[in-house]
Parts: sequence; C-alpha cells; structure tokens
Amino acid sequence: MIKVIAKNFAKEDKVKRVLELAKGLVEETLKEDGCINYEMYEDLNNPGILIMVEEWETMEALNNHMSSEHFKNIVPKMNEFMAQKAEVNICKKVI
Amino acid sequence: MIKVIAKNFAKEDKVKRVLELAKGLVEETLKEDGCINYEMYEDLNNPGILIMVEEWETMEALNNHMSSEHFKNIVPKMNEFMAQKAEVNICKKVI
Repeated sequence: MIKVIAKNFAKEDKVKRVLELAKGLVEETLKEDGCINYEMYEDLNNPGILIMVEEWETMEALNNHMSSEHFKNIVPKMNEFMAQKAEVNICKKVI
Repeated sequence: MIKVIAKNFAKEDKVKRVLELAKGLVEETLKEDGCINYEMYEDLNNPGILIMVEEWETMEALNNHMSSEHFKNIVPKMNEFMAQKAEVNICKKVI
C-alpha cells in the first residue's frame, strides 16, 4: 500500500475556492481503480493548510491518478490559489 | 475526529533507532482511550522523513496522549536522533 501525504498551502482568502475544487477532485478520484482512500484535512490552527491524505493499492494506480483527466484539469486550477508549492510525501507504512 | 500529521526528520544514520523507539510508542498509544489509529510511514524517496498519522476521537484524548508517561518518556529520546524539529498539523476532515 502507498500512502501519500500532500500538504497544500492555500492563500487564506482562497480556502473556500480550493475546497470547492478539491471536492470535485475527491469525488472523481474515489472512483479510480486502486484508490483505497482520498481525503482532505484542514489544520485547526492554520486554515490555509490543507492536507490530502491518500491510500493507493500500488504505485501504478497512483501514477495513473496523476495522469488522469480530472487530476490534470483540477490540480492546476487549485494551484492558482496557493501561497506556496505543495509538500508531497509518497510513503510506505513502517509501523 | 481529530487527525494529526506529524512529520519527523530523522538523521539518516539514526532511522533504525528512531523506528525502534517509535514501535514502543505506537504499541502503548494504541491502548489509550480515544485512540482510533496511530501509524508511522516512511517517505520512499527520503528515508529520514518519518510521518506519524494519528486519529483521535477528541482533542481531550490527544491532550491526554501528550501527557502520558510513554509519550513523555519516549518522544524526547526520539528527538535526540532528529535532524530538525518536527512539523505537526492537528486537523479536522473537510472532504
């Protein structure tokens, strides 16, 4: 299983717009083969920090996701509302 | 539900020691009231990046965890092997 932790830094006045876009992305992504889970969390103390927590069956499924039409369509729109580049960690479970 | 994403940056030659300590922390923490999940992940491309992904029923349960004997005993030992300060996000699910 592959875990992805993708920390996004939205401009504070654009959080609502990012969440609207992310909702569409989550809906489409959950339909993908090999997607176990795909959720977004917001930092309670820093409203602009939006963290996508993802679980994929394989690296191939994750790669397919990043080549999907909905990813290529929605993610660049979300990035327009970000204050800085996302921090993405692609991980395996160790404990 | 409270989600915690705690990104740790272990010195590369100390990853094994950190994982040994973290294993004890995870074992004890999973026994705590209000702990839904508590897992550690390692970045596939950056072996020193160790991310604890936690789920707590309430903020009170999380606070009790951070006051627990095993937390106060083990976390300072882990911190001796870190290259930099951890980045901790305490979050709610938004999507």
